[in-house]
Parts: sequence; C-alpha cells; structure tokens
Amino acid sequence: MTKNQLAPELLDKLESFLSTYPFGQKPDELYDPIRYILKLGGKRIRPLLSLLSYGLYQNDPEKILSQAAAVEVFHNFTLMHDDIMDQAPLRRGKETVHEKWNPNVAILSGDVMLVKAYELFLPSPAEQLGEIIQAFNQTAAEVCEGQQLDMNFETRDHVTEGEYLEMIRLKTAVLLGFALKLGALLGNASKEDQERLYDFGVSIGVGFQLKDDLLDVFADQAKFGKQVGGDIISNKKTFLLIKALELAQGEDAKTLNHWLQMEEFDPHEKVQAVKSLYEKIGVKKLAEDKMNEFFSTGFSQLEEIQKVNEPYYQSLYEITQALVHREK
Amino acid sequence: MTKNQLAPELLDKLESFLSTYPFGQKPDELYDPIRYILKLGGKRIRPLLSLLSYGLYQNDPEKILSQAAAVEVFHNFTLMHDDIMDQAPLRRGKETVHEKWNPNVAILSGDVMLVKAYELFLPSPAEQLGEIIQAFNQTAAEVCEGQQLDMNFETRDHVTEGEYLEMIRLKTAVLLGFALKLGALLGNASKEDQERLYDFGVSIGVGFQLKDDLLDVFADQAKFGKQVGGDIISNKKTFLLIKALELAQGEDAKTLNHWLQMEEFDPHEKVQAVKSLYEKIGVKKLAEDKMNEFFSTGFSQLEEIQKVNEPYYQSLYEITQALVHREK
Repeated sequence: MTKNQLAPELLDKLESFLSTYPFGQKPDELYDPIRYILKLGGKRIRPLLSLLSYGLYQNDPEKILSQAAAVEVFHNFTLMHDDIMDQAPLRRGKETVHEKWNPNVAILSGDVMLVKAYELFLPSPAEQLGEIIQAFNQTAAEVCEGQQLDMNFETRDHVTEGEYLEMIRLKTAVLLGFALKLGALLGNASKEDQERLYDFGVSIGVGFQLKDDLLDVFADQAKFGKQVGGDIISNKKTFLLIKALELAQGEDAKTLNHWLQMEEFDPHEKVQAVKSLYEKIGVKKLAEDKMNEFFSTGFSQLEEIQKVNEPYYQSLYEITQALVHREK
Repeated sequence: MTKNQLAPELLDKLESFLSTYPFGQKPDELYDPIRYILKLGGKRIRPLLSLLSYGLYQNDPEKILSQAAAVEVFHNFTLMHDDIMDQAPLRRGKETVHEKWNPNVAILSGDVMLVKAYELFLPSPAEQLGEIIQAFNQTAAEVCEGQQLDMNFETRDHVTEGEYLEMIRLKTAVLLGFALKLGALLGNASKEDQERLYDFGVSIGVGFQLKDDLLDVFADQAKFGKQVGGDIISNKKTFLLIKALELAQGEDAKTLNHWLQMEEFDPHEKVQAVKSLYEKIGVKKLAEDKMNEFFSTGFSQLEEIQKVNEPYYQSLYEITQALVHREK
C-alpha cells in the first residue's frame, strides 16, 4: 500500500462506520438531527488524525474506527450547539439544525450526541478507558471554555493577542491535539510520543485558525469557498484586527476606528479599506509570521516521535502539510 | 449507628463534596452557573439512593461520594437545559440560569456539567468503569428521549396512557433506577440484585410521577409548596387528563373540553371544575390505583434483594416510603 492510499481508504471506512452506526431511532426529533449534521460532511480531519496517529504504531487502524468516530461526533455536537448560540442560519451551505427543526431540538439532540461520543469510546481496552475518558473530559471542557471566551470577546472592547491565542487554542486546537493523542494512546505509543503528538496537534491547530483569519481577508475569491472579507464586515476580533487595533497610529488608527464604528457602509469598500490597512500597518505579515511559528513548532514536535510505520507518518505529514498550504 | 442517622450523615458528606468539588474557574460564565444551580438545593434523593444502595453491600459508602455526585450533577444538567426549553423563569423559587445569565450561558454551562458528570465517575475501579459508563450512557439517552417525548406531547391532540407511562419512565424513572444500580454495582452486588434495585427504582420512579400528578390537583394547599392546580390551568397532559379525555362521556366530556378550550377563565373556577370532573369520572381513583400498583411492584422487587447490611436497608426503605407518603 502506498502512502497516498492510506488516508482515502481510512476515510471511506470511517464514513461507512458513521453512516451505519445505530445512534437511535425514537423519537425522530432526537436522532434524525444527528444523522443530518453528520451527513453534511466536512473534511473529517479530526478522526483521520486519530486513525493515522494510531497507524504510526499499529497496522490495524480500522480497529479504532469507533473511537475516531467519537471525536467527529463530539466535534459535530459542538457545531450543533455553537450554531444555536451564534444564531447561524447555515452550516456547510445547508440549514442548521435549530433552523430546520427548532432550538429545543438542537439543544436536546446535541446533548444526546455528546452522550453518543462517550458511547463510541467504550470499545477501548478496560485498562485504557479511564485515561481516554479523562483526557477527553479535559478537552471537552476546554472546548466549551474556548466557546465561552469567544462569545465574551464579542462584547469586549479590548482583547489582547495573548487572550486571543489562548481562546483559539481552547476552542479549536486542543481537539486536534486530543485526536492525535487518542490514536497514539490506543496504539500503545510511549507517553512521550503521546504528548508530542498532542503538542503537534495543538500547535498546528492554532496555526490553522490563524490561517483561517488570513484567508478570510486575503484569499483569492476565485478559489475561496465563501465570501472573502466576512470577518471584516462583521468586525470580528481576529488576530488581524486585534493587532491592528494595538499597532495602528495617527491617521491609520482613525481610519480603522471609522470603519469599525460605521453602521451603514458598502461592504466591498469596507473590506478593501481595512485590508489595505492590515497590509500597511504590517499585521498581515505579523499574522503570517505567528502562523508559521506555530506550524514550525508543530512540525518539529512531530519529527521527534518514533516512526514505527513510515507510510502512516508520510500520510500524516502530507495531510497536515496540505492544510498548511490550503488556499480555501 | 442507628438506621435513622445514616441518611442525614450521608447527605451531609454529599453536600460537602458537592460544595468543594473543583468544577472549574475561568471563564466565570461557564462555571458559576454550575455552582449556582447545585446550591439551589433539592432533596438529593438520587445520590442518596446510590449511597444507600452501595451501603446494602459495603460499609464504606463515603468511598463512592464522587459517583453519587455524578448522578446529582447529571440531574441538575437536565434541569438547566430543560428550563431553557420550557422557558421556565424560576427553579426552586430562584431565577433559572438562562434568566439570571442568558440562554447561551445555560446551554454551554449545561454542556460542561454533562462532561463533569462523566468526570465524577472516573474514580471507579478500572474493571467496572466501562460497565458504569455504558449503563449511564443508556440512561442519559433515555432521559433525553423522555424530555423530547414530553415536548412532543404538548402539541399533540391525543396521547395514550401507555405513551404517557413510557414518557415518564424515560424522563424521570430510569435515573432513579440507574442511581440504585450504580451503588449496587460499585458495592459488588450480584447481577440479579443490581437489576432488582434498578427495577425497584424505575417502578417507584413512575409511581412518584403519578403522585406528582395527583398532588398537583388534590394536595392540601396548606401543606403543598406551590399553587395547587397548576397542571389544570395549563392543560398539562398528565395521567389524570389523559384518562379523563379517554373516559369522559356526554355532559362530562363537553364540560371538560369546554374548560380545555377556554382561553380566558378564572383559574380557581377552572381548577375546581376540572378537579370535580376528575373525581366524578373516576380518574382520581384510577391514578391512585395505577400509582399504588407501581409502588407495590417496586417494593416487592426491593424485598427480593440480599440484605447484607440491615441498617442501610432500613434507611433505604424509610426514605422511599416517606416519598410514597409525602403530601407536598
């Protein structure tokens, strides 16, 4: 098997596992939304990280499909509840659960999804289950902390770079770290390798979010999936805006605040103006440097692990590098 | 130690455990609501059942305070989320979490509470943890199913007695069954006793809900904590109303439907009229008979278990009998 086939084959198996897993039947309003949100797709990057991470140490990653699926089910639970809180009408171009059904259904169906995530961890060896649940509990609580901080930042005037990086670490990066650690733990990797893979996941996770912030402003509209500039239009406190507010001087500061406070504006004009400011003030470069710093830290952590199965290492490296270089 | 001191002493220890457990600190909006809802009190009947059930087989119930607390934390998580769904302004006379903070805080803080419930199970022996989490997952999913059915019933014209009994079994009774089974399992009771205690809990749980339905209409207002007749005023589909709709004939059926459809009415008048109908049609007696049938089934299941520690058996019997005979 060549390196390039590993990921697609594992993704096929995972998809088949997810689409046939007996989440439950009655009442419909409780279980249909689980199947609905899982069918909306997504890159399944988190469970793939678990499978490849396990594959570094053992040759039978299909043995941990259930635990890998747990990570994806948990991720989709957070999306279902976050979408209620953010009042988001769409998720991956389709109606969100609280729109298609109602907010109560999205609350309760999400609750059951969290229970099902725990259920999916159960086929683990008894001597590892406690450690897995403990690591997962910590990650799950941290993801909730990150979401709460993100909501708090919306109504705060001032957010520091450090606070922002900590928020994205909690809200998105620790789950990538957990996904990788989970595979390593189940694959009986050394404690050191488990921690290295965790750290690798957290580092690239923070980098991926910084990349998201950059793409939202600077992506090529022809290649980008959604409207470029959405974060600028909504004054979202991304790394770019936080640094711009910190560093802008004189006229630049005035212009930036002018756009932030304007209630009626031409979206295209605002995006172009703020984008130019980001380049002029130098925060585009600062964000790129910070992102690359996290990627570089991450991949040096990855390099230090024991590479038992080279093809899985290659696949893991390629998959994560593709995300580092993505343009959408 | 005499039988009567066991429950109060265990409840003291449980309260102290709950009030000092490190649920988490930052952000405040995530963790303060957990401490807030737990401080509102309640009878702590579920964790007490776990402790007494364990005490039937082992003399050191303080060893499972964490797991007993898990049941109470889970129960309060369901209250926090149910209160959002029911738009309830008050819980035990105090503002509900979504009122005191906001619905997003109640969603996310509830999510973390569910994670913390799993965390509290972790100090269990490794060889029992999988079984505990599996039994808990099933119960947790069933409680959500019950809540969804309860919401569905609100907008349905017709609900059968069987559907209602199944809904209350899921929404409230299985958690009592699980609480008892948990204690027995951790106490190394036989599989048979674990199931008997589970069945006992489910049977009395259904009985307690039927008792709630009856008290809401027929309680002595001087002894009852809240306004008698609330279910009648809101047309709540309780056992009484479901059976009355099924059995009322001629004039009685007309009068009942008249009150159900009236949009403006004197509450006291409606309560008196529907209450009289319940007695006349005979559904008060039907509900009492059904309730007693569940209690009687329950206690005969309890009698069959092996009574290793008689004082704990006495305490368990007294506590549950007090609930059978409560007047508020």
